[in-house]
Formats: sequence, C-alpha cells, structure tokens
Amino acid sequence: MTISFKNDYSEGCHPRVLEALVRTNRVQQDGYGVDEYCQRAAALISEKANSPASKVHFVSGGTQANMLVIAACLKPHESVIAATTGHIYTNETGAIEATGHKINAIEASFGKLTPAHIRQVLDAHMNKPHVLKQRMVYISNATEMGTIYSKQELTDVYNFCKENDLYLFMDGARLGNALVAKDNDLTLADVARLTDVFWLGGTKNGALLGEAIVINNPILQEDFAFHVKQRGAMLAKGRVLGIQFEELLRDDLYFDLARYANEQAMKLKQAFSDKGILFWEDTITNQIFPILSNTQIEHLAQKFTFHHWRKINETHSAIRLITSWATASENVEALVREIGQL
Amino acid sequence: MTISFKNDYSEGCHPRVLEALVRTNRVQQDGYGVDEYCQRAAALISEKANSPASKVHFVSGGTQANMLVIAACLKPHESVIAATTGHIYTNETGAIEATGHKINAIEASFGKLTPAHIRQVLDAHMNKPHVLKQRMVYISNATEMGTIYSKQELTDVYNFCKENDLYLFMDGARLGNALVAKDNDLTLADVARLTDVFWLGGTKNGALLGEAIVINNPILQEDFAFHVKQRGAMLAKGRVLGIQFEELLRDDLYFDLARYANEQAMKLKQAFSDKGILFWEDTITNQIFPILSNTQIEHLAQKFTFHHWRKINETHSAIRLITSWATASENVEALVREIGQL
Amino acid sequence: MTISFKNDYSEGCHPRVLEALVRTNRVQQDGYGVDEYCQRAAALISEKANSPASKVHFVSGGTQANMLVIAACLKPHESVIAATTGHIYTNETGAIEATGHKINAIEASFGKLTPAHIRQVLDAHMNKPHVLKQRMVYISNATEMGTIYSKQELTDVYNFCKENDLYLFMDGARLGNALVAKDNDLTLADVARLTDVFWLGGTKNGALLGEAIVINNPILQEDFAFHVKQRGAMLAKGRVLGIQFEELLRDDLYFDLARYANEQAMKLKQAFSDKGILFWEDTITNQIFPILSNTQIEHLAQKFTFHHWRKINETHSAIRLITSWATASENVEALVREIGQL
Amino acid sequence: MTISFKNDYSEGCHPRVLEALVRTNRVQQDGYGVDEYCQRAAALISEKANSPASKVHFVSGGTQANMLVIAACLKPHESVIAATTGHIYTNETGAIEATGHKINAIEASFGKLTPAHIRQVLDAHMNKPHVLKQRMVYISNATEMGTIYSKQELTDVYNFCKENDLYLFMDGARLGNALVAKDNDLTLADVARLTDVFWLGGTKNGALLGEAIVINNPILQEDFAFHVKQRGAMLAKGRVLGIQFEELLRDDLYFDLARYANEQAMKLKQAFSDKGILFWEDTITNQIFPILSNTQIEHLAQKFTFHHWRKINETHSAIRLITSWATASENVEALVREIGQL
Repeated sequence: MTISFKNDYSEGCHPRVLEALVRTNRVQQDGYGVDEYCQRAAALISEKANSPASKVHFVSGGTQANMLVIAACLKPHESVIAATTGHIYTNETGAIEATGHKINAIEASFGKLTPAHIRQVLDAHMNKPHVLKQRMVYISNATEMGTIYSKQELTDVYNFCKENDLYLFMDGARLGNALVAKDNDLTLADVARLTDVFWLGGTKNGALLGEAIVINNPILQEDFAFHVKQRGAMLAKGRVLGIQFEELLRDDLYFDLARYANEQAMKLKQAFSDKGILFWEDTITNQIFPILSNTQIEHLAQKFTFHHWRKINETHSAIRLITSWATASENVEALVREIGQL
Repeated sequence: MTISFKNDYSEGCHPRVLEALVRTNRVQQDGYGVDEYCQRAAALISEKANSPASKVHFVSGGTQANMLVIAACLKPHESVIAATTGHIYTNETGAIEATGHKINAIEASFGKLTPAHIRQVLDAHMNKPHVLKQRMVYISNATEMGTIYSKQELTDVYNFCKENDLYLFMDGARLGNALVAKDNDLTLADVARLTDVFWLGGTKNGALLGEAIVINNPILQEDFAFHVKQRGAMLAKGRVLGIQFEELLRDDLYFDLARYANEQAMKLKQAFSDKGILFWEDTITNQIFPILSNTQIEHLAQKFTFHHWRKINETHSAIRLITSWATASENVEALVREIGQL
Repeated sequence: MTISFKNDYSEGCHPRVLEALVRTNRVQQDGYGVDEYCQRAAALISEKANSPASKVHFVSGGTQANMLVIAACLKPHESVIAATTGHIYTNETGAIEATGHKINAIEASFGKLTPAHIRQVLDAHMNKPHVLKQRMVYISNATEMGTIYSKQELTDVYNFCKENDLYLFMDGARLGNALVAKDNDLTLADVARLTDVFWLGGTKNGALLGEAIVINNPILQEDFAFHVKQRGAMLAKGRVLGIQFEELLRDDLYFDLARYANEQAMKLKQAFSDKGILFWEDTITNQIFPILSNTQIEHLAQKFTFHHWRKINETHSAIRLITSWATASENVEALVREIGQL
Repeated sequence: MTISFKNDYSEGCHPRVLEALVRTNRVQQDGYGVDEYCQRAAALISEKANSPASKVHFVSGGTQANMLVIAACLKPHESVIAATTGHIYTNETGAIEATGHKINAIEASFGKLTPAHIRQVLDAHMNKPHVLKQRMVYISNATEMGTIYSKQELTDVYNFCKENDLYLFMDGARLGNALVAKDNDLTLADVARLTDVFWLGGTKNGALLGEAIVINNPILQEDFAFHVKQRGAMLAKGRVLGIQFEELLRDDLYFDLARYANEQAMKLKQAFSDKGILFWEDTITNQIFPILSNTQIEHLAQKFTFHHWRKINETHSAIRLITSWATASENVEALVREIGQL
C-alpha cells in the first residue's frame, strides 16, 4: 500500500485526545454545547488569545463554520470579499451562496488579500443600490496555498476594514500551522485583536473533528447560538468537541502538533531543494508544491499518494504534499530518500 | 450531584465504539466520507434493511439530517407536511424554513400522522398556485412523544403518499428504540420498503455523534453528496462516522442498546403504575411522561434531574424521564425506590 | 355575461390615473424610483400621514411588498407572528419562507391579533436557541375577513410590540377601505405612529398596480433600496408607480374611492339583512360574507360571479362579495333587486 | 433642461399602448395573469416565435424575470454560467445569489459567451461534489455591450449546452433591438428553437413595464406559475401586462419601435465616425460607446445627459448613449449637430 501525503486528515486523532474521550466517557453532562468541557475549552481559548470578552462556539467542520459565520453576520444585501483561491469560493459547493450571499472574489498573489485588493472590489461596486454592499472580508491563515500573513499585513488589512465598515473574518483551518511557522510573527492574541471573528481548526490539527469559532466583535456575538442550531451545527453531544479542544489546549499540545507537521513538510522541501527542484508556491507551513517532471511524478506515485495540483506544461506539473501531526517520521524519511533518487 | 434522566445524550458513547476508534486511529483513509469504514457501514445498513439499492450518507446530527434531506428533495415551491409535534416544526430554530421551505403542520394525536391528516392538509391547499404544492411527508419513529408506528399504520401512510405524489421521510433519531419496542411489528426492512428516505440515529443510541441517512427512492439519490457538502455536513474525517456505525451494526449491538434503554424506561413506568400514577402519553420506548403532583416532582428533583414536560393543572404536571444504553441499572433502581416512596 | 363581484381588481384603474399617465408620458425622468413623481408621491404620503421622517418606496404588488419588508427587517434566526388567516400565511405560495423566515401563526377571531395572541406565541417559544426568536408582528387592516382595527386595538398591539422588542408591520392592501369604514376611528397618521412599517395599497383602490411601503422606524429605513432591487421589485420605469400615487393622493381621490367601494358593499349587506340573511363575518369595509342556501347561491350565480367562501353545512355556504371604486352602481342595484327576490 | 440619452426607459410608453389601456379599462377580467389579454398576448408570442408548445408568463421587470427563471430551474447544488458583464452578475444586487445560487462568471469578449468559455468553466469544476454542478448558461441578446449573437454563434452555444446537460437561458431585455439590428440573421423563431427559456423585454421597447418569459423546454414549464407567485411577480391586475404586449405584438409595432431606436443610435454613431472618433465597443443596436476627450465630454454634457461608461486614460473616457422608440428625431439631430462641432 502507498503512503499518503494527500492531506492532513487521513488519520484519526492524537492519542491524548482519544484518552480524554475515554476518560470522560461516563460523566453526565448537559447537551448542545453548554457542558463543562466546552466551557473550559472556551475559557482556555480566550485565555490563550488574551481576549476575555471573546465568545467561543464549537462546530464540527470548516465549511459549516464558514457558512454559519457569514450567514450570521451579513444581512441579505451584504456580500463578502475573498481571494479567488479562498476555500469558500472554490471548494464549498456554493455553501455561502446557498445562504443567500454573494462572494466578491478577486485574484490575489499567494492567496493573500491586501488593502489594495479590497479597495479594488469596493471601487467596482459604486452603483448602489444596483450592486451589493460589501460588509465582510474573508481571509485564510495559513492560506490555501500554504502562505501566511505577517503581523504588518494583517494589521493593514484589519485597519482598512475598520475604516471601511467591513468585518474581518479569518478562516483558521490551519491557523496552528501558521502561528508556529518559521518567520511567523503573529500570535493568537494578535489574531483575536486584529479580526472580528476567526476560527481555530481542530480537524486538521489533532482532533477527530471540530473547529472553534471565536467571536471578538461584541456586535457579532449576540444571538449566535441560534445560528449554530439553525444551520445544523449544534451537536447534541457538544461535549465531544469541548473534550477534544480542552485536551489540545490545556498545555501546548495544539501548537506542538502544528510545529511537528510544519517540520516534516520543511524536511521534504529541503530534499526537493537539494535536488534543484523549484516550487509553484514558496511555503513555510505544512504543505509544499514542488514542480516535477511527469516521469518524476510517476516514480513517486509508485510508493506515495499525493494531490496533482496543476499542470505547468506538457512535461511538468506541480504536486501538493501535506504533512500533519500524524505523519510518521519514517514515512518522511522514506520519501526524502526517494526524492534523493529522482 | 443529581442523577440525570433528562435525555439520551448525557454521556459519551458505548465502550465498543471508543475501542473501534482507538483500534483504527492510525490507519490512513481518504477524507469526506469515501473511506472504507463508511463504505462497510453503509453496506451493513443496506444489508440489515434488505435494501441493496439504497444509498447511505453519514452526517453528524439530526437537525442537519432533516434540513439536508428536505432541502435536497424539494423544489422552491414545494412544502413538507408534519405533525405539530414534529421535531422540525418545534425544535430546530427554523432550520427547514431557512432553506426556503414551509412546513405545513397539523395537529395529530400521539404525534402520529395518518392519511386523514395528510388529506386534510392537501384539501386546505386547493387554491393553486397561490398556495404551496405539498411534496413530502415527515414523520418520526419513535415519535417525539415516545409512541411508534405499526406496520399497518406506516403502510397506510406510505400508500397514501404514493397515491398523492408525496415523498415519505422518516426521522429516525430514535428508530432503534421504536424497532425493539414491545408490541412493535415493524422491521428495518419494512422501514426501507415503506419510506422514500429515512435516517437511523446514532447520537442517541451508542455513538458519540452521527446519523445515517438512507435513501431508498432512486430519484432522490442523485447528486445527494453535493447537498451534504453544501450544507456543511460532510466531515473531512468522515471515517469518524463510518467507524462508529460499523461497530454498532456489525452484530446486534445497535439494537441491544436500544432494547436495554427501553427496558429501563419500562421499569420506571411499571414503578409509577404500581403507585397508581397516570401518564400524559402511553409510551413503550425509552421515554415516559408520568403525571405527578408538584410535591412529588419536588421530592424526585432532590436526587434526579429530568424535564418538566408540561403543566396539567395548578397542582400537577407531566415530567419526562428518558433512559439510554448508558443508564446505569443502579440509577434506575434508585429511582424505582424513590417512586415507591412517593 | 355575468357581472363580477369576485374581487376588487377586476378592472383597470380610475380614469384620472390613466389621464395622469397620458399627461406625463413624454416627460424624461430618471429610472428606478428616483424620478420626480415618486418623490412627490412620497412627500404626499408623508404629509398625509403626518410623518415627515417616514421613508416611502413604491413596489408593484402585495406579496412583493410583504416578502420584501419581512426579508429586509429580519435576521435569519428571527420569525414573524401572524394570524392563521394572514395573507402571508395562506395565499402567498410560501413567499416569506422562501426568503428563509418562518411565520409563527396563531388562530385569531375576526382575523385580528391581540396582545394575548402574541403573548401566547412568545410563551410557546421559551426553549431558546432551539426555537426562533420572534421579532415582528404582521397584521392586515382591513383584515382578510373585512374587519378593521380600532385605535385602541392598534395601540394595544403596538405597545405590546414595543415592550417585547417586536416590530409591528401592517399589510395595507385595503387600508383605504379600513380608514373610511363606518365606525373606524383610526387615521393614516395613527397608522404611521403605531406601526414600524406599513404599506398603502394602490392595486385594489384605483391604481393599475402599485403599493406604497412606508417605513416609520428609522432603523428599518437604512439600505432599504438594496432590498427593493434584490427582490426584483425596483421598476426601471418607477415613474409608473409615482404618477399613479401622486394622482390618487394629490386630493382625496384615494379615500373617496375607498368610501365608494365600502358604500356599495354596505348596500348589498343591507339588502341581505333585510331578507333576514346572516353573515359569516360582520364586516364594514368592501367585502361581505352572506350565508346562503345552495339554491340561493345557484340563483345568484346565474347573473353574478363571486367567490364561494366556505361550506357551512350540507345546505348552506358563505359566499364573498367584493366591491371597489369600479363597481357600477347599476350593477349593485341589479344585485340588490336579485337579493330582494331570494 | 438637458436632453437625456442616458437610458431607454426615461419616458412612459408608446401612445398605442396607452390607448389600449384606456380602451380596455372597464372590462372585467380575472386576476393574476389568467385574463384574456394575457392569453391573447401569449398566443401572439408563440405564433411569432413559431413555437406553439412554448408557455408564456408576464412579469414586471428584468431582474425579477432573471431571478425567477433561475430559481425555478435550478436545484440548490446547481449553478449558472454567465459572462462577467452579464446583468445578473453586475447589476442585480445579488438577486440570483439571494435565491441560493452561485453565478460562475467568466470574462468574455464583446459580452458574448462561446462554447470555449463554457468549457473553461466546466473544466474548472471537476472536483465534485466539492464544487457546484453547472446546469444553466445565461446569455443576453443584445448583450449589455450592445453586441448581438449571430445564428451560428447561438447554434454553437445551444448545441454545446445540449451536449453538456445545460439549460440555455437568454435575457432579452433588448431582444427587439437585437433582432432588427443591421447584419442580424436571427429570428424570434430561431431564439425559441435555440434556447430552453428566454424573455422578450417590454420595458425598454414601448411598454410601461413588463417582460414576457417564454419557456420552450417542457421540463421547465411545469409548475412555473407557483414560482411567479412565490417571488412576488404575479400582478393582481395581470391584464396590465397582457394588454401592453397584445398591442405591441398584434402587428409589427414591437419590431418597428426597436428598429427606430437602432436607427437613431446608428445616426449618432455615423456622426462620431465622421469626426474620426473611435468606439469602446463596435455596436449595431441602440447603444453606442464613443471614446471622447474630457473636453469633448464636458462640452456635450452642457446640453445632453448620458452615462460615463469608463475611463480610458487621463484624457479620454468612453460614454454610453442610448436611444429608444421615444427618442425624438429632433433631439438626435441636435446631438448630431453638436457632434459635428466637437
């Protein structure tokens, strides 16, 4: 059987998370997210984010988190701005539009929005009320390309949003990977301070499932639980999410797992670089995009599974390799050896 | 601390389910519900339902299952008929309407719809196109009142639906409890044969989370996965649902757990009956609704937690007691003793 | 050919309205509702309603006005309360639900809501966030039954709404008929003062088409034009609506037409009463509901068209007769004669 | 006062249309679009389109027609493909998305889609079910740029749609102008044969308001009236639309008006060309886009109103001039004189 570097959700969860589920299994708790585990996990997040006034809600997946937040925050005539590479624009089967909202997408290098991009969208929508009112900006960190926002970049975007009456929403499916990346200068507290709402991904960083939506802007906090329920995101056994996040966050496990994942990816990146192989995108988190010849791809595919990202020309394509907390180091070494022989 | 009889989702999951999660934890699988566990669990359901052509999709909760199925099956001008006690009408924060569809609700004794009820709704909607076109009937089994449909009753409803171009959809949050109830004469195969689509609940019967949507009508099978994704119901680690259902269904565990839950409720029912206490609804599944004096309720509330169902008069109210696979028999015995002293 | 008393939109418009359309036909104006006619008509309404801060938007029909107002005012988790006889609940093909909002309907005598009805709905929705948050009350005046609200009744409902954080919305498809009805003590200024938003119907009172939405609550005024456009309600030649309302309101034509319609209905009512015939609902506007024997109905149907409202028993049914500004007095006289011979 | 060339809906309607409204004003008819005028107008359209099986519905505006058709034809997981210049993508305040559907927009020269464009969108959506299923193609003829589809071009698009299970929908706000344009080789019968559904615009070609939706594909005809009502598009006095379309189509008035409008635009085009002035888009219908120096624009703006279309560089911009059936020839002559003096 081949070894998969296809994504960061190929395995179950970190053993400590399973142990926590086992340990708490018979304790009786109230349902629907008001159990003690959720409360403690929420408190841990607020504390680590240095944002005691933030409100935390746990849901089961990323598309769910995105559609729920956007639908809860926007009125019918308001739209959300995103990069054309944004997950909500490319890979969520129209989940946002299904709640009635248009995404105003704009091409952005490295998957990262700047004030200039946002300004461009606003300028293209002057013919009010025949066009939508832009009211939110959606960014991902790490982005879908594996790149990250610096503190200055995020500050610039946030300030621009505040000057233009826009909410800033960060998709944090891989926020852990971003925050521990080499060269990163953002902290979780910065993220809480520089966004109106963001979510901290569990699914791709050690949990069986679960994302923590963190609402920093008090205006957006009101009545949020109604939306969680209405969109089918309120688990009867909400404890399942609380237990996992408490375990991941009661020490530094969450960040340790993300760091481990990044390190494995960087080992692979180094191995490709050592062979003079170039990358479609220069990344420092847990995904890399080497550009290989078709022959090289076929060769690697004999032992490893990965995503064919995009064709570069007739003879070459970029592939995507992803690592996670669960990537066995012997598998990384096996792949590094194989790369050495390309 | 009090002992809770408040609902059937107060604890985690059956130990065998946890063991299965532990056992499979490091196996690499594809994401988004196309893993081997989901495939095997789906096959087990089809087999037990004697319905090889049915298609199975796993989602994380009941409201999600309901809104997803209804939104996938109906066109914008079509509505769904339900009892006024139906979960979609009372306790889902407008999740169905949020997808654009009206519920035509009608009062029904024991929470059960008959052809006469459905006919009444159809007759009240003759002024087409100024009224909606009814296209689906939603029933729950066991109902929200703890009652169940007999084979004759379900057959009558199904035949009426087919004669009137209506889909029949069964919410099976507690289908296990219904199918093993004393006096029940329905099988899972009957349910598959006599509905267009139903779901088999995991959350309330041994799983951490998860419901299995079973689509029997081929017309409704097409493109269903798009809807699962669009409504935020497709877990990246879909395996989490497949593993649980496979474990619950690879032998009779699922039904054994439901039977155990019913038995505990019936013990409590007997204890109340022995004291001459009456019930708001005569149930044979895992929930009972004894009518107690306020003094009796206060007395029980010292040691036990339960739901105050509804006020009967100034001196009496009905309470709801629910049991599950996790209800410890010593807790039942403790409550039986307490009932004996009322 | 038979003479129709079937509804109040069987003919075109009042001749003065046509003349105004002819007179203004070649004048160039800006599109989309910002023309001078709309501005003047809006000013006339604000003036007659003694409500200079109100904002007026003209749309083409009643269902459009209702769905637009409700969708613009409510957030996804908010619902609207209405009588089960409310037009939005019975005869709009799920238009409100299609925008994502549930109608919490309650049976109300004479089609009129009281604080007690609204309280009853609120009390049934305590289990938050598993139920919707009620945020608006919808009433019609005249009601769908032809009854009207007194000043005291409307004041009571409005005060209750304000105490309970509910918007009050009045459907005024037949508001003219209500305001000039015998025994009415409400003025247009009262309506503006005692609602958050209402609309003044043109279609059923002299216009070819058109309803004027009047928003009194400043919070609901913001961005409303976006919603008008988004729901397809912004006519390119918005002037068509402005011209008609200006003509109807520049003197008392609008109210004169409504008064005439009511008077014709009351003549018919008197004729039935003189024969000792009873009514299904005691009305004082432009619709009456006499209860006739099947033989009597058949007899009248030979020369007149009307709505069979509902079966009372095997031998009797209520019919509905509606008059309008266009009901020719000779037709009324002909019907009165026929009634005399029943 | 300045003379407006700003749009083709600055005046009322053609005098014959007003006369028809006057002539029929007192005739009693049933409401909601089932009157005799609508029936006759529908029959005239079917006849002129040589498409007896087509079904016709009259609505009041273009955005309404577009959102209604798209929402009626698509399921929740299906999307519509359009040019980035398409009216539904640029100028309808998210009306389509508000019904839950995403528009997959693609840049297209001259505002016209080809099979290559559509293929490109399909190819970018292979990752099913994580992306939407494209199910409809939206085109405009004349386009928003004033260009038209040739018979060959429309045939190619239609055939591609049929091979790829896509509905073809044509927005015909200015279909009259397209069909009588110089060099046009399409007939109304071709349009009916080569689309699944289209609409024939009244608002911009002689009517006060009104567009005729023509459904050619029998699958899309079913239940359409429900959607018309649900989206607020069914006028109580539907006759208003039927009367106008009957008058415009009972002889060649509709096409004569469009031809007149085109001719006036072409006179202006010639005048600009005679001065060596270039155009942003080379059009043959009723809109032209000359590129003028800022000084020239200021000069013309003293006597004429028009749309500043887009800045070309620091010294030049394109403006848009539109003519209609109502454009007085003396106004055209006045503008031609002014152009001669630029």
